[in-house]
Amino acid sequence: MKLIKNAAGRLVPLEANGLKQISFKGVNQYKPSGLKAKPPIRSCIDYPLDGNKVVKNLKEALSKSGLNDGMTISTHHHLRNGDALTNLLFDTIKRMGIKNLRWFPSASFPVHEHLIKYLEDGTIHHIEGSMNGPLGKFASEGKMRGTGVLRSHGGRYQAVQDGEVHIDIAVIASPTADEFGNANGVTGKSACGLLGFALADSEYADRVIVVTDNLVPFPCVPWQIQGNNVDFVVEVASLGDPTKIVSGTTEVTKSPDRLLIAEYVADFIEAAGIMKNGFSLQAGAGGTNLAFVLSLKEKMKANGIKARFMRGGSTKYLVEMLEEGLTDYILDGQTFDLEGVRSMRENPDHVNTSPFTSYNFHGKGNFASMVDVAVLGATEVDINFNANVVTHSDGYLLHGIGGWQNCLYSKCTILAIPSFRDRIPVIVDEVTTLCGPGELIDVIITERGIAINPLRKDLIKAVKKSSLPIKTIQEIKEEVDEICGGIPTKPKLDKDKVVAIVKWVDGTLLDSVFKVIS
Amino acid sequence: MKLIKNAAGRLVPLEANGLKQISFKGVNQYKPSGLKAKPPIRSCIDYPLDGNKVVKNLKEALSKSGLNDGMTISTHHHLRNGDALTNLLFDTIKRMGIKNLRWFPSASFPVHEHLIKYLEDGTIHHIEGSMNGPLGKFASEGKMRGTGVLRSHGGRYQAVQDGEVHIDIAVIASPTADEFGNANGVTGKSACGLLGFALADSEYADRVIVVTDNLVPFPCVPWQIQGNNVDFVVEVASLGDPTKIVSGTTEVTKSPDRLLIAEYVADFIEAAGIMKNGFSLQAGAGGTNLAFVLSLKEKMKANGIKARFMRGGSTKYLVEMLEEGLTDYILDGQTFDLEGVRSMRENPDHVNTSPFTSYNFHGKGNFASMVDVAVLGATEVDINFNANVVTHSDGYLLHGIGGWQNCLYSKCTILAIPSFRDRIPVIVDEVTTLCGPGELIDVIITERGIAINPLRKDLIKAVKKSSLPIKTIQEIKEEVDEICGGIPTKPKLDKDKVVAIVKWVDGTLLDSVFKVIS
Repeated sequence: MKLIKNAAGRLVPLEANGLKQISFKGVNQYKPSGLKAKPPIRSCIDYPLDGNKVVKNLKEALSKSGLNDGMTISTHHHLRNGDALTNLLFDTIKRMGIKNLRWFPSASFPVHEHLIKYLEDGTIHHIEGSMNGPLGKFASEGKMRGTGVLRSHGGRYQAVQDGEVHIDIAVIASPTADEFGNANGVTGKSACGLLGFALADSEYADRVIVVTDNLVPFPCVPWQIQGNNVDFVVEVASLGDPTKIVSGTTEVTKSPDRLLIAEYVADFIEAAGIMKNGFSLQAGAGGTNLAFVLSLKEKMKANGIKARFMRGGSTKYLVEMLEEGLTDYILDGQTFDLEGVRSMRENPDHVNTSPFTSYNFHGKGNFASMVDVAVLGATEVDINFNANVVTHSDGYLLHGIGGWQNCLYSKCTILAIPSFRDRIPVIVDEVTTLCGPGELIDVIITERGIAINPLRKDLIKAVKKSSLPIKTIQEIKEEVDEICGGIPTKPKLDKDKVVAIVKWVDGTLLDSVFKVIS
Repeated sequence: MKLIKNAAGRLVPLEANGLKQISFKGVNQYKPSGLKAKPPIRSCIDYPLDGNKVVKNLKEALSKSGLNDGMTISTHHHLRNGDALTNLLFDTIKRMGIKNLRWFPSASFPVHEHLIKYLEDGTIHHIEGSMNGPLGKFASEGKMRGTGVLRSHGGRYQAVQDGEVHIDIAVIASPTADEFGNANGVTGKSACGLLGFALADSEYADRVIVVTDNLVPFPCVPWQIQGNNVDFVVEVASLGDPTKIVSGTTEVTKSPDRLLIAEYVADFIEAAGIMKNGFSLQAGAGGTNLAFVLSLKEKMKANGIKARFMRGGSTKYLVEMLEEGLTDYILDGQTFDLEGVRSMRENPDHVNTSPFTSYNFHGKGNFASMVDVAVLGATEVDINFNANVVTHSDGYLLHGIGGWQNCLYSKCTILAIPSFRDRIPVIVDEVTTLCGPGELIDVIITERGIAINPLRKDLIKAVKKSSLPIKTIQEIKEEVDEICGGIPTKPKLDKDKVVAIVKWVDGTLLDSVFKVIS
């Protein structure tokens, strides 16, 4: 596999899975040309006039969709680790004797460990999408036939829209649907909130199969997925395990170090003057993130501040802020708990968004760059503020990118991270895998201090007079290296064997993930 | 202009405005091939990161959109006869010295008489879209440079989607919008309910300009038009006259004949067994239609019947039925009065729909064919149940098709029409212009009796034992001809001069409108 150095100085292949790749040119340097993908024109003549698209089972739907060797099959991950459908889907495909598929999930989870046997026996050729946990480990060991392709949520929409990835058959798990294929995630026993990750699939796939365990009479309202894009509807007993689809409990961290980080984050947002009337915020669902949201909330209340919008993954903490009038809107990309689902179902100010709306870099703008402050995590950060979210320091690919890359476009991007994990420093000389260019990462907040990207003179000036523990990133690094007994050992990687590639938001190749030598 | 006879026996040209045309092949006989239209791929690099797309004025937006001679400019008609923006738009274009445009409105109204001077001076080459009133008369007189193209609401979406009509610049009147271009019609002083007629334009036009008289901070919620599809935002003092955008009063007919028709319609729906729990209905806003809805409502209440959904154009009468629990949902394509706007704003069960969802014949089904009964009007019907909605018996083109053709796909299509108007029979030997093939029209209800299409043996049987005045269409015709003193004189038409063409829902040519010799 021939590798070249891209504009970020990272080695990337010229092609992957037989497709030519464009290497990363620098942030905002690559401009696409050409036209969007163009699905086939259909006709109502070929669809039932009474709108009833229900077929007997998944096998019939797949068969009528023309399932064949080498096709691309897509799924979404709104059911997270509670998803039973994707496993059922590939069990069915295996029984049909189909081989060599490209699986194009918006993400995969530990529950999908079940599919390793299909990667081994060639039913699935490779995965394009986040590989959280076992499937990522499998890929890291060099066992996947093809090369994994990691994209952000926005990058996935972009790839489909631009025709980079043609989906033959999309299979959309739908907690509620009608016979016509209108579907939503806000109601039903498998309610997951919304179905935005499946939007591109529904719009661009050749064939679209909606699978539900809650079939309702037409019309299914709201229709987050439009039946007008759907070919077949399948009813199943259960889409998965509701307790794992939404956890029901989202725990704030109890770690003193993490609580300190959370406090620093809230303090920084206040001190930098970001927390003012009409501001906006993106927060995730990790324990530290939840803690900082609670801390910020108290500050907002104390100062009589109201946000214009907050972006989720929504949790009960964001919902409380909406219901207490601390924000006008939640603009939500996925719901993380039952309260998020309830709020989205009941409250028109809890708005469901899609990767098209929020993150697609090949649109006429997107929401991500309008957010005043985004608080994110990372597995590693280097002294140039470059960050990694997909591999651990041991080289194993264990996480997806999610919306992380897209969120870097916020007006102030903060990485809230512990300075070390398991006695391994998180701040390093060079990240194992580059997922986010340092020029887009503004602030690193650890329990040992806050480092502001030197490019952000405005932020440095804004917090100058605060009592925050502002340090250089080198200072924090040295302190941590000393505690941990030196810099971490580099993982042993086979640099001739690319197991996955990391795309930037514009579809170019930012970095490669290499095989781990164990 | 070379004309051929199509499958309906009507004379249609082989080409119009320099574009080849496909002649009508029969209902459900023409199947499209090929791929959908493909807009250019854009990049966030070219749009402001802070999301602010506001430019100084319409001229600047048009200029930045690359306005040039011969382009296609689209507008929507949700502001109906209160629309001031379209006139302002073409005043601006005229001042910019641009010529030879194709104007592609979803419909035009009497208020657009203002534009006749631009049709005369060559600013506008021709109109593709409904011409209600003066512009239709202008075309009928053979004064328009190009050939008018009449499409149904669904046909307009289909034409854009299929790439038949490429929109260079879409100008979207938006009663509320934010700086990013998210827009809706439910709030603001010019509130019109929804913006569904502009959906295709926003998705497929090269450049999209949102014009608003109510600019709100991001995010404008709900976003019926997505800012991610918008290039520029323009603020104006006023989009138009709110009293004409939504009438505020919708009057039930007081004519005894029309009231009788309305009563027959409600009686028929009951007698035919259509009015049962979970049924669905499409009703418009004409005086007769309103009266029949009121009459049906009483029957539903008396019998404890609840509908699953009602399709609008919504009026206060439909809203009352929703609020009184007589229907689960209103699925609404346009709001006709203030109560409709309020209900759509406040009630999540009053759902906004688009021509894509409701009517696009080149989709994977649409809503129209799922409706149990649709009650429509017509200017003429012939003895084979073929009907006309665009021209009067004098040959003048005075109306658009609207969703009429699309609604013919309902399970029972009723034309509720007076048997004569101004002493001119409405039931004729042959319609002046064919807009709807008789095989899709099931029942004609006049004040003199009800004619059921002989193809619908099931309906004939269903009402056999009722006391309804069932007659053959010939019987009604003879009766009316006698009253009116014979069959109506045929209009004098110049059959060598096609002034407009009528498309069927699949994009084929159903009929021609000819120049009137006055």
